[in-house]
Amino acid sequence: MYDRLKGFRDFYPEKMAARRQVVDTLEDAAARYGFREISTPALERTQMYVDKSGEEIVEELYAFEDKGGRGVSLTPELTPTVARMVVAKQQELSKPIKWYSTRPFWRFEQVQQGRFREFYQTNVDIFGSSAPEADAEVLAFAADALTDLGLTGEDFEFRVSHRDILGGLLETFDADVDTRAAIRAVDKRAKVEETEYLGLLSDAGLSYEQAEEFDDLVATGDLDEIAAFGGDDVEAAVENLRNVLAAAEDFGAREFCEVSLTTARGLDYYTGVVFECFDSTGEISRSVFGGGRYDDLIESFGGQPTPAVGVAPGLAPLSLLCQRAGVWPDEALATDYYVLTVGDTREVASRIARDLRAAGNVVEVDVSDRSFGAQMGYADGINAETVVIVGEQDLANGEVTVKDMGSGEQTTAPVDSFPGDRASPTYDDLV
Amino acid sequence: MYDRLKGFRDFYPEKMAARRQVVDTLEDAAARYGFREISTPALERTQMYVDKSGEEIVEELYAFEDKGGRGVSLTPELTPTVARMVVAKQQELSKPIKWYSTRPFWRFEQVQQGRFREFYQTNVDIFGSSAPEADAEVLAFAADALTDLGLTGEDFEFRVSHRDILGGLLETFDADVDTRAAIRAVDKRAKVEETEYLGLLSDAGLSYEQAEEFDDLVATGDLDEIAAFGGDDVEAAVENLRNVLAAAEDFGAREFCEVSLTTARGLDYYTGVVFECFDSTGEISRSVFGGGRYDDLIESFGGQPTPAVGVAPGLAPLSLLCQRAGVWPDEALATDYYVLTVGDTREVASRIARDLRAAGNVVEVDVSDRSFGAQMGYADGINAETVVIVGEQDLANGEVTVKDMGSGEQTTAPVDSFPGDRASPTYDDLV
Repeated sequence: MYDRLKGFRDFYPEKMAARRQVVDTLEDAAARYGFREISTPALERTQMYVDKSGEEIVEELYAFEDKGGRGVSLTPELTPTVARMVVAKQQELSKPIKWYSTRPFWRFEQVQQGRFREFYQTNVDIFGSSAPEADAEVLAFAADALTDLGLTGEDFEFRVSHRDILGGLLETFDADVDTRAAIRAVDKRAKVEETEYLGLLSDAGLSYEQAEEFDDLVATGDLDEIAAFGGDDVEAAVENLRNVLAAAEDFGAREFCEVSLTTARGLDYYTGVVFECFDSTGEISRSVFGGGRYDDLIESFGGQPTPAVGVAPGLAPLSLLCQRAGVWPDEALATDYYVLTVGDTREVASRIARDLRAAGNVVEVDVSDRSFGAQMGYADGINAETVVIVGEQDLANGEVTVKDMGSGEQTTAPVDSFPGDRASPTYDDLV
Repeated sequence: MYDRLKGFRDFYPEKMAARRQVVDTLEDAAARYGFREISTPALERTQMYVDKSGEEIVEELYAFEDKGGRGVSLTPELTPTVARMVVAKQQELSKPIKWYSTRPFWRFEQVQQGRFREFYQTNVDIFGSSAPEADAEVLAFAADALTDLGLTGEDFEFRVSHRDILGGLLETFDADVDTRAAIRAVDKRAKVEETEYLGLLSDAGLSYEQAEEFDDLVATGDLDEIAAFGGDDVEAAVENLRNVLAAAEDFGAREFCEVSLTTARGLDYYTGVVFECFDSTGEISRSVFGGGRYDDLIESFGGQPTPAVGVAPGLAPLSLLCQRAGVWPDEALATDYYVLTVGDTREVASRIARDLRAAGNVVEVDVSDRSFGAQMGYADGINAETVVIVGEQDLANGEVTVKDMGSGEQTTAPVDSFPGDRASPTYDDLV
């Protein structure tokens, strides 16, 4: 017997039915905004990640040499791949480019609740617009997806921040501060002790007093005070953040947003607005998913300067939130009909099954040469709503029996006109 | 600029729209038969393939050692994984187990037309039934999927064979023949010269005369003659093949099947009925996809004896067939509405867009702060059927303009009742 790899998961039908419903909900929401599905490779050159992703990601790569001697890696995230794709066709693609896709990614990391080595994300991105409406549309998609799943403003909140506010403030304190390191410190703020956090800020070049003052300022989230304190860059960033929130108001997503400048996002390539979705009840303490602007990435891939903004809900943390809120879909099979054969009735039963399938129903028949009782038990196990019993005796009378599996009631129907013109006839239609 | 790996593909939205339509068609057909979706890991232990798959597959593995020192491989096919999954839950799973899934697989092989290193398959399998109805249901699913794609009996045929007929005949000639090697030779029959083929049979243990006589017999496909020539095993296998074809008749798939004993399938684990789908016109000379029984695999994975039968259409060869037959879906974007803003009308335009999306429409709005002309050009580029123009002037009159992008005709509608109760109002609904 072979075992599954740690951090990898098999999804059997019941669980998969719920996951499929959630993914369909996310993708339908994206599609209604005019995001278009793309499909991308599972392997890329390792060098791309070494150059473009943060150190943390490179350490977690499933990297190896292929039989052609290439250094390749299982993709740990989508963003570098879509950046590559945008650059490859930058002349042909009309802007804004709006793409989505759902697929697995792989990182060799510690397995814990809601975190696996193989994990699924729905990535949604806009390339080619620096306007605040683009940031707001990404927020609006995310809000629609979550409310379509049955979540409400009581369940989740988007903590919205701005990299240029953080970066600008840091430079106001000290022009020589290591902005990246300091922002990475902010990203860790909620996860570490205060002294460690202030220590990280001071490693990045702030004095202890500056670090405290910086933290007080971002913790208040008072945009007026921050704009007044910082230079022109900070003022422009504050205005951009306000414009994004105003567009989010028109787009129906403002009610889910709160300004939270201590939200920073770990990845180095973010610029401008960034945000993270949190469980409003705090029961799930980690960020559910996040997104933001990455205006410099395409250019760093050798493309023309192309602003970009995106979000990537992960299915595992999202399922924790949905379960906490009681909106995770039922993990159950659904079957419209089981067409049961008794005796030598396969020909007629098959004709009925084919007619019902042609109308779009999920229909199972006996493929195991089983007894009446065994077929009934199986029909019950797959949650068949209706069982159509095709017995030799009934057929001699020109009839079939139609049984409602919920109530147990049954009636007969003329075999020649079953299902007839009805797409999905049930017991109730026949009595 | 980074390049894509050879044999791996990026699918941009237009191409992906067509692929999605084809995959949905395959999966919908499977779902209507009561096959249930599962999801499986991209990585498995390399040892599983070394033990269970043919040599050819092992040579083509993307195999490496993970950071935990495990020998792992990108999955080159689904069958060993689902066998592992069946064994892992064999007590809980009620039979028949009917699963489907669509996902990429990876093999390091020569890239050619319709063959890539990353390729997509929809796997459809039944576990736990040895009855001919199970084989026939797999054939019927495949036939439904292809006809749902718009293909007809003029376009494709299933060449149906039986491993035990081939094996039994070989043993009738010579009890010591290497059956596996001889069957692999049969699989190569159409691809190599006759002398090479007969040579392979003689390598497997037949004399040259026996090889010729064996080949004459299987080439005729005369089941009566073959049953008479072979022993009891051959007779039983002939009867099984006939029973499968009779069930396929009831299930609506017989018309697409022809007996072709020279069809053998390359993989070692097949037993019983095997089949391959071919282009009836011969324009595509290679098999489009194949399937068959593999009754011994689950037991060889340490499970209880569990018969199994399945099929796995690959998207790349299937797209060649659909293109040849002229039924490959349009590679084009589809958009219901573009809501165009002129001046400071974002609030109203957003309300209209949200109402239209809530009714399920695909709706884009300006996210790039663009001019009227640029927005119109973009709306045209995404094939918007209707453009709703929300202009300051019109709004002052309480109106919006609704433009049919096909005809170019336009009219106005009261803004307060647009879209109103109508899910998808068009120009024609308004005049």
